[in-house]
Amino acid sequence: MQLGHMQIDLNSDLGEHYGAWRMGDDDAMLAIVTSANVACGFHAGDPVSVLATVRAAAKLGVAVGAHIAYPDLVGFGRRPMTPSAAELEADVIYQIGALQALARVAGTEVSYVKPHGALYNTIAFDEQQAAAVIGAVEAVDPDLALVCLASSPIVDQIRAAGLRAVPEAFADRAYEPNGALVSRREAGAVLEDPDLIAERMLTLVRDGVVVARDGSEVAIEADSICVHGDSPGAVHIATVVRDRLTEAGVTLRPFAARS
Amino acid sequence: MQLGHMQIDLNSDLGEHYGAWRMGDDDAMLAIVTSANVACGFHAGDPVSVLATVRAAAKLGVAVGAHIAYPDLVGFGRRPMTPSAAELEADVIYQIGALQALARVAGTEVSYVKPHGALYNTIAFDEQQAAAVIGAVEAVDPDLALVCLASSPIVDQIRAAGLRAVPEAFADRAYEPNGALVSRREAGAVLEDPDLIAERMLTLVRDGVVVARDGSEVAIEADSICVHGDSPGAVHIATVVRDRLTEAGVTLRPFAARS
Amino acid sequence: MQLGHMQIDLNSDLGEHYGAWRMGDDDAMLAIVTSANVACGFHAGDPVSVLATVRAAAKLGVAVGAHIAYPDLVGFGRRPMTPSAAELEADVIYQIGALQALARVAGTEVSYVKPHGALYNTIAFDEQQAAAVIGAVEAVDPDLALVCLASSPIVDQIRAAGLRAVPEAFADRAYEPNGALVSRREAGAVLEDPDLIAERMLTLVRDGVVVARDGSEVAIEADSICVHGDSPGAVHIATVVRDRLTEAGVTLRPFAARS
Amino acid sequence: MQLGHMQIDLNSDLGEHYGAWRMGDDDAMLAIVTSANVACGFHAGDPVSVLATVRAAAKLGVAVGAHIAYPDLVGFGRRPMTPSAAELEADVIYQIGALQALARVAGTEVSYVKPHGALYNTIAFDEQQAAAVIGAVEAVDPDLALVCLASSPIVDQIRAAGLRAVPEAFADRAYEPNGALVSRREAGAVLEDPDLIAERMLTLVRDGVVVARDGSEVAIEADSICVHGDSPGAVHIATVVRDRLTEAGVTLRPFAARS
Repeated sequence: MQLGHMQIDLNSDLGEHYGAWRMGDDDAMLAIVTSANVACGFHAGDPVSVLATVRAAAKLGVAVGAHIAYPDLVGFGRRPMTPSAAELEADVIYQIGALQALARVAGTEVSYVKPHGALYNTIAFDEQQAAAVIGAVEAVDPDLALVCLASSPIVDQIRAAGLRAVPEAFADRAYEPNGALVSRREAGAVLEDPDLIAERMLTLVRDGVVVARDGSEVAIEADSICVHGDSPGAVHIATVVRDRLTEAGVTLRPFAARS
Repeated sequence: MQLGHMQIDLNSDLGEHYGAWRMGDDDAMLAIVTSANVACGFHAGDPVSVLATVRAAAKLGVAVGAHIAYPDLVGFGRRPMTPSAAELEADVIYQIGALQALARVAGTEVSYVKPHGALYNTIAFDEQQAAAVIGAVEAVDPDLALVCLASSPIVDQIRAAGLRAVPEAFADRAYEPNGALVSRREAGAVLEDPDLIAERMLTLVRDGVVVARDGSEVAIEADSICVHGDSPGAVHIATVVRDRLTEAGVTLRPFAARS
Repeated sequence: MQLGHMQIDLNSDLGEHYGAWRMGDDDAMLAIVTSANVACGFHAGDPVSVLATVRAAAKLGVAVGAHIAYPDLVGFGRRPMTPSAAELEADVIYQIGALQALARVAGTEVSYVKPHGALYNTIAFDEQQAAAVIGAVEAVDPDLALVCLASSPIVDQIRAAGLRAVPEAFADRAYEPNGALVSRREAGAVLEDPDLIAERMLTLVRDGVVVARDGSEVAIEADSICVHGDSPGAVHIATVVRDRLTEAGVTLRPFAARS
Repeated sequence: MQLGHMQIDLNSDLGEHYGAWRMGDDDAMLAIVTSANVACGFHAGDPVSVLATVRAAAKLGVAVGAHIAYPDLVGFGRRPMTPSAAELEADVIYQIGALQALARVAGTEVSYVKPHGALYNTIAFDEQQAAAVIGAVEAVDPDLALVCLASSPIVDQIRAAGLRAVPEAFADRAYEPNGALVSRREAGAVLEDPDLIAERMLTLVRDGVVVARDGSEVAIEADSICVHGDSPGAVHIATVVRDRLTEAGVTLRPFAARS
C-alpha cells in the first residue's frame, strides 16, 4: 500500500456508565478514536448517559456502533451465557433498536454492531450463537457492519451471510503464530509499552502483519484497531498509537463512514 | 354522525409477559382490538415475547404502539416515580427505539406511543413529566401519535407541541360529570356488566357522550377505546363491546392506520 | 422397612411470583407438600410475595427451603451460567440470608437449601460450582441441609464436606438403568399418568427402587420426592401421589423437621 | 460533658460498588470511620463486593449497618418512590437479611440500619413510610438501632415504637436555625473548608450545638456524624474531622458497639 493511501479505523468501548457509576474517560477517547462502540443497556449504559455519549460522538464525527451484550449488568457482560437462538436474536434486535433511536435523536446513526465481552468471544468460535447474532443484525438492517475478531471463524460466517465483516486487531494484545490472541491467562498476553504497541500497529496497517510471540510474522486482516480507555494508562497508549499512525501518514477514518 | 360512517379504534395492553411469566391472553385480544399497546421492557416485555407479540399483530393487521413505562419491573410500572426530565426523556427514546426495531423485523412499525400505568396517570396532569414524554416522542418521530387520557390537560399540551393527541375512553370505567374517571378507590368505579359497557361505548361513538355517575351526560372526545384482556372476564367484555359496535355499523379501525 | 414406619418428604417449588406476575398455585401445593422450596429473588420471588408464601408455609407447618438460583430473572434461572467461585458463593449467601429474615418474620426458619434450575443441574456434576455452593451453605449455617439430585456426584461431595445431603427423586420423571434421569429431550422422559406416578413413588419409598425405562429396577437413595405445581395437571398428580402414599401408611414429614 | 468522656460515632456510606463499577474509597474510609453503612443490593452493592466490604469492616472493628434503599439501581436509590407499606416492609426485611448473612460469614454482624438516599429523606418526614421501615426493622430484630436525620419527626416515631433511634448530623452541611439541613438547592448548603467543618463537629460533640446559617446556635441531638468518602476531597475532610476530634480528646467508637 502506498504511503498516503494508508487508512485505518480506531475503535473503543464507550458509554459504559450506569446511573451514578462512571467507567472510562469518554471525552478523552472520543478525541482519539474514529468509531465508538456504545453500550446498549444490557451490560452497561443507562439511557441518559448513552444519549450524552452519542451526542458527543455526533459532534466530533465519530461513528457510532451498537455494543451489544448478554443481559448481565452485574457481570458487565463478561460471563459466558447460553441463551437460546430466539432469545439472543431478540435481545440483539432490542439493543440495536434502542441505540438507533438515541443516535437518531443525537443527530447521528448506528453504522455498525460490535458484540461485547463474553458474547464477542463466544461468537468468534460458536457457530450457533454467531448465526443468531448475524441473523438479528441482518433483520434489523443488512447495511450494518459487524465488527469481529480477526482470524476467527465468524469472519467468513458473516461474509457468507452477505453482511460486511470488519475484522479487528487489538493494539495491546500479543498474538500467536496462527493469528489468535495469546490467552490472557498467559504471561505477556497484554502489552504495556506504548511505543512498542504503536510501532506494531503501524506495521499492521502498512504491511498487514504483526510479530507473533515467537518472533514470526503473522498476517492479520484488520479493518479496525481496538484501543482501550478504561484507565489513564490505556488512554495514553491510545494517544501514542493515534499519533504514531498519523505521523506516518495513515489516515484515521471510520470503516463505516456515513454517506 | 351518519350510520355507516361511524368508526373507532379499540386498543389494549399486550405483550406484558416477562420471561417465564405470562400475563393476559394476547391471542384472544389481537382478534378483538385494532391497536396493540406493546410493552417495551421497562414494566414488562422481554425481547423474545415482545417479538412474538408484534409478529402476531403484524399478521392480523393490528397497529402497534409503544407502551412506554417507568423502569420498574417489580412494580409493573404502577408506582409513581419522579425521574428527572433528562432521565424520562432518554428512557422514552430508548423504549420506543427498542420496539421500533422489533416491529420492523416483524414486518410492521410503531405507529403510536401510549404511556403505561403510573406514567400514564402522572403525565395526564403533571405538565413537566408530560413535556419530557412529548419531547422524546417528537425527537424520535413527530409522526408518532400519543395516546392519552380524554378530558385531561395533556391533550392540549400534546397538540400545542404539534403532535397528534389520541384521547381515549375506558370501556369499563365510570365517569364523573366533568369527564374525569371515577377514582378506583370509590365504589362503582369499575363497571362489570358487558352489555351495559357495550351500550355505553356505542353511545360514546355515536353521540360523543357517556352517562356520568350522577346520570348526566358528559361529552368525551375519544379517538380510541381501551379494553382490557387480563382476565377471562375482561376478554369477554371486550368481545361484547366489539360485537355491539360492529352490529351497530361502527367500523373498527386503527386511529393510526399505516399508509 | 416395616409398614407404619415408612416416611418421606414431598417438596415443591413455591413463591415463584414476581411483582404482578403469578406462577403456580401455592395455596394448593402448600396443602400437599411437607417442604417448600421458596424463591429468593434471583430467578423469581419479589419480597412481598415471598413473605406471603413463607407466612402460609409457617401456618401449615411446611418446612421452608431457600431455592437459590443464578441471577437471571428474564431466564427464570434456567440458563446455565459460569459465575466465578467468589460470585457464586456470595450470591448464595445473599439469597439464603434474605430468605432467612423473611422466614423469621413469618415465624418460621430456613431449614434447607435447594438450588434451582440450571444451577441445580450444573452442580450435580460440576465439582467446582458445587464446591462454591457447598462452601456458601456451610459458611451461612452448617446445619442447613442441601437438597440435590439423587445418584449424582454432588451427593458424596456434600457429605465429604460434612453437610447433610438430601438426595431427591422426581415423581414425574423416567429413570435410566444407572439411576440418572432420562433426558427431557427424549420421548417418555416426563411421565403423565397420575396413578402410575403414585405407584412408582410408593415403590420407591417402600423398596428404595424405581423401574427404569428398560424395565429393570434401579436403587435410588431419596430422602425427598419433588412434585410440581405449575399447572392444574401437576397439582392433580401431586395430590394423587400424596394420597397413595398416605393410604399405604407412609408418613409424610419434612426431612428437615424443626426441633 | 467532661473532657476525656466525650465520645461520638463517625459513619459513612460504603460498599456502593456494583459489578465492574466502583464508587468511593472504602479502604480509606474504613480507616477513618467507626460505623460502615453497607449497601444491600437495591441501590448498589453486588454480593461479591459487599462481602469484601464487610470482611474489611470486620477486620478493622468497624460496626456494620444495613444501608437499605428503594429498589432503583439505575437511579442509585436517589429518586423518591411510593411503594405500598407491604412492599416497603418486605423490601427492608429482604435487604437486612441478605446483609446479615454476608456479615455473619465475614465474622461480624449487622448492628444497625440506615436508610439511603431518597428513602432516608422521605421517612424523616413521611410518617407512613417511616412506619413501614420501623415495623420491618422491629420484625427482623428489635435490637437493631435505626439511624435517622437529627431533629426530624422520625426520631420520636422510632422511640415511640420502642426501638433505638440514632439521630445523626452531617459534617459538611449547613443548618437552619430550627435544626433542619439547609436545602441543597440553596447556596452554601454544602460546606467545603475541612478545618471549619472539623471545628463545627467538635463544637457539636462538646456542646451539643452547631452554628446555623444565621449565626445563631442551634441544639442538635446527634449520636453519630456522617462523613462522605465519594471523592478525594471528601476523604480528606473526613480525615481532618477525625483528627480534630481525637486531638481534642473525643473517643471515636461505634454507637452500636458489639457486646
